[in-house]
Amino acid sequence: MKDKQQLKKAIVLLSGGLDSATVLAIALEQGYQCFALSIDYGQRHNAELEAARRVARAYPSVEHKILALDLRAFGGSALTDTDIDVPDAGESAEAIPVTYVPARNTVFLALALAWAEALQATELFIGVNAVDYSGYPDCRPEFIESFEKTANLGTKAGVQAQDGPALRLRAPLVSMSKAEIIKKGSELGVDYSLTVSCYQADTSGAACGRCDSCHLRRQGFIAAGIADPTIYR
Amino acid sequence: MKDKQQLKKAIVLLSGGLDSATVLAIALEQGYQCFALSIDYGQRHNAELEAARRVARAYPSVEHKILALDLRAFGGSALTDTDIDVPDAGESAEAIPVTYVPARNTVFLALALAWAEALQATELFIGVNAVDYSGYPDCRPEFIESFEKTANLGTKAGVQAQDGPALRLRAPLVSMSKAEIIKKGSELGVDYSLTVSCYQADTSGAACGRCDSCHLRRQGFIAAGIADPTIYR
Repeated sequence: MKDKQQLKKAIVLLSGGLDSATVLAIALEQGYQCFALSIDYGQRHNAELEAARRVARAYPSVEHKILALDLRAFGGSALTDTDIDVPDAGESAEAIPVTYVPARNTVFLALALAWAEALQATELFIGVNAVDYSGYPDCRPEFIESFEKTANLGTKAGVQAQDGPALRLRAPLVSMSKAEIIKKGSELGVDYSLTVSCYQADTSGAACGRCDSCHLRRQGFIAAGIADPTIYR
Repeated sequence: MKDKQQLKKAIVLLSGGLDSATVLAIALEQGYQCFALSIDYGQRHNAELEAARRVARAYPSVEHKILALDLRAFGGSALTDTDIDVPDAGESAEAIPVTYVPARNTVFLALALAWAEALQATELFIGVNAVDYSGYPDCRPEFIESFEKTANLGTKAGVQAQDGPALRLRAPLVSMSKAEIIKKGSELGVDYSLTVSCYQADTSGAACGRCDSCHLRRQGFIAAGIADPTIYR
């Protein structure tokens, strides 16, 4: 193993869900020194932060920060406003469902960028996925590409870089199906029993089995032919 | 005056300094219903948050939110790390000085965007300025243009817009000198005695008179030929 001083640094956004746990394993496999960032944004499914802690602890080399930022101040989503119900999978007719949190990935990537600049990290990893996903605008490849450009224009490292972007935004799952993600993570030894995907998991992390996120996850395990370790309540 | 229901909504980033107070006055003059956003990011010059409160209170139609987000968790700037001294004006040989806060405007604009989406506001106003400024990469017009593109790609309103961007990022000061900003604000009745620009203002808001920000402000009042209401300690 290389000396830590020689490893390139990466920030990995870690929600505690299946996708970001897989991304962390991919970034570590690629040889980065990883700094995992979770945001306590007042999410209804607070159990995912406990999941993020468990996932990060499974990799002792990873430094993990949980930053508090109460997006309930703005409202506008079923995930931050308990007056808005989480719909069952397939129940919503909207192209962009009520579980969409306004500008969430823009906010999270901006925070990852701030930490990256302070650490002189060169990579930001995010587990967005545009195949088996919920129709959120900030999970699409065109958004990711545009954020990378903005990040390089708005930071010291980007401005001072001589050849190409100083910061790279990496979305290794963007074109993968949920089943492919689960297969990849399983090869890398990700323990999916540590993760929580449900939008309304209870405090123990037990999943509802009904929401869009539960539905995508369950179908993914079935399609991958891998036993689903999720505990449903 | 138009009915509030008919006014277009704008988010205005309000730091409590001279520039953002001027921007708020400009946005109000242009007829927007304004929502002012300040970030309590653990800044050394916390007196600017008091200034932001005073400025917002001067405009009773304005709703003001102060959001807590402790950027000290990341460090890397003289403004968030008290172990790094604020240099006197002209003292730093660096093109980008130590008072630069990593990715600050990216983070603040992302938060403004989140509030804008929740409120269905169409404009984000920010008081960046690329003339009499401190050399921060995230104050340049190319950064602002790129963020606007990213914002429209990463939000519901942007994706659903049929003709042109749904969200506009407005930086009305970007090409103005500090003296021009002060003249414009004075015409609009901005009370600059309410504002604090100093990077190390004391709790009463009294300015050091030595840092880069004090220097730019003082020179601006002199060049504008307008009496400087700043209290120096």
